[in-house]
Amino acid sequence: MVDTMREGWTELDGWTETEQAIAKEAFERAYGRAVERLVATVRDRTAALNSAESVWQLHDYLSIERHTMEGRFDFRLDGILFVFASLVKDELLTIKELTGLDAEKLAKIGAMSRF
Amino acid sequence: MVDTMREGWTELDGWTETEQAIAKEAFERAYGRAVERLVATVRDRTAALNSAESVWQLHDYLSIERHTMEGRFDFRLDGILFVFASLVKDELLTIKELTGLDAEKLAKIGAMSRF
Repeated sequence: MVDTMREGWTELDGWTETEQAIAKEAFERAYGRAVERLVATVRDRTAALNSAESVWQLHDYLSIERHTMEGRFDFRLDGILFVFASLVKDELLTIKELTGLDAEKLAKIGAMSRF
Repeated sequence: MVDTMREGWTELDGWTETEQAIAKEAFERAYGRAVERLVATVRDRTAALNSAESVWQLHDYLSIERHTMEGRFDFRLDGILFVFASLVKDELLTIKELTGLDAEKLAKIGAMSRF
């Protein structure tokens, strides 16, 4: 249902090839879920449109979501653990879907996702 | 179905009270139609959403429509004949709905609406 991510994937220093493959798949999965959630919200809001003001509120909502998603899924090494933590916190990903990353990375992601 | 216009109505020099009342009613009618057309288009486009890219295209569309509508319905004396002409051209208003304006104004609106 959703398109694949268009940005290239940066090589991650200090990550094994297996870890990178896991991270990439988890990332694309979370991205797909984020898009599905976004589309579902837009459909809900569209059903309730009844004025110019309500259309402009939808426009404002999309401005914010676009900014958030483009920032969140613009993948950079320095923030990758934080990105995964925020995806877990936001229920776009589970810790289980990151199984295969080394224990230290998983522990950091898990701890940050509870903040 | 649509909200009423929020901007105040500027007094129009050189227009009789009757003409102003006709202009105001025509203007609000066109605004209502513009909003209904906008909502219908958003609903159509929403039904076809299937990717982040398609959501961002909807966002771009709303940015343009918002800009257009806010400009078009920000009522100013110096451009009112042109505004009515563009509303007629865009099928948001008919010349008949402006009946009661003096012949010269109607002729100008009619002529410009055919460009």
